[in-house]
Amino acid sequence: MSGTFISFEGPDGAGKTSALRAITATLQPMLGDRLTVTREPGGNAISESIRAIILDRANTAMDYRTEALLYAAARRQHLAETILPALAAGQLVLCDRYVDSSVAYQGAGRQIGERAVAQMNQFATDGLLPALTIYFDVPAEVGLQRIQAHRDPQQVDRLDVEKTAFHDRVRAAYLRLQAANPQRIKLIDATQTPDQVVAAALTLIKQTASGYFTAGA
Amino acid sequence: MSGTFISFEGPDGAGKTSALRAITATLQPMLGDRLTVTREPGGNAISESIRAIILDRANTAMDYRTEALLYAAARRQHLAETILPALAAGQLVLCDRYVDSSVAYQGAGRQIGERAVAQMNQFATDGLLPALTIYFDVPAEVGLQRIQAHRDPQQVDRLDVEKTAFHDRVRAAYLRLQAANPQRIKLIDATQTPDQVVAAALTLIKQTASGYFTAGA
Repeated sequence: MSGTFISFEGPDGAGKTSALRAITATLQPMLGDRLTVTREPGGNAISESIRAIILDRANTAMDYRTEALLYAAARRQHLAETILPALAAGQLVLCDRYVDSSVAYQGAGRQIGERAVAQMNQFATDGLLPALTIYFDVPAEVGLQRIQAHRDPQQVDRLDVEKTAFHDRVRAAYLRLQAANPQRIKLIDATQTPDQVVAAALTLIKQTASGYFTAGA
Repeated sequence: MSGTFISFEGPDGAGKTSALRAITATLQPMLGDRLTVTREPGGNAISESIRAIILDRANTAMDYRTEALLYAAARRQHLAETILPALAAGQLVLCDRYVDSSVAYQGAGRQIGERAVAQMNQFATDGLLPALTIYFDVPAEVGLQRIQAHRDPQQVDRLDVEKTAFHDRVRAAYLRLQAANPQRIKLIDATQTPDQVVAAALTLIKQTASGYFTAGA
């Protein structure tokens, strides 16, 4: 496993996905095919089929543990088909959401239990954690306001039909994860300007993956 | 939880499903709507969709842990939609395959690890185990011969394309599970005649679920 794995985490509306786009635009010219940017389900047929079951609004009877297991299954397949091969090829892998999302959303948001969801996901990942997780922190109200301002109402899916209390639990879980894993998870204040957020994230990435940025590497 | 939950387990070709059919024919007139006979995926839309992903022969790239997580997800949904409501209504629930199948097939057969698969399934079931598990034991060669004699070759799915070594590992795992859980798991020698097997299973069921068979109950 010669590559470096970095995940991006945060509540909805934290600006994580936009930041990842800007970061990719900066890093792509420097790293070329040594950079892989991905997110679950990641385009493989199996994970996409699983994701379709999760997001089908007709599936109102879906049990929360079923949902957590399906996310873990899609994660596993994405890991097997995309992340592990890229790491084996020595690439820098940036992934939008990984296990911490399930701990926060299913464990705390759905109230299944953070520890139970983390343990189940350990099966899915076979224990593989990122070298660095960048956590984009915003208060729940700020995140929700940003979502409502930017979203096409037609595209609202089942997961958006949730309350502020849910998003408060998600953020609290992220903060607990960060406090419990301060070496792996680094917090960025995502209420800053987009440029400030991107600059902070790039600094963290260059510290963790310094080998990709040294002259002659 | 006032009902009684009994699972049926065994390698392919053990005659478990035929025995369950004969047992149902015997118990149905005695118990009426106090009897629920089921098997995963159990007819609910979510579990059926999950099962379709698992059995799709086009999905040759499916990782074994993905497969195990999908079985667990289908199990959870079947539990939530069928088994738990039946138990809450006080029914005797007979289920063709449950967690021990995953420990044997994914844990030992696929060699993911029996303990890891058992722990992950504990998340799926929230710890719910049957009061009785009837294990139909046959040597791998006998089971495989029976399958080949009875199956329409058109119906052979991806899971059938396996070797005897796989089925040997599955049987060994079932025997280990039985030895480790002698109170819950009872072994029936399924090389006996079908009538003998059914009679032995009925005896075990009536011992465990005696309340359903006493006069005036």
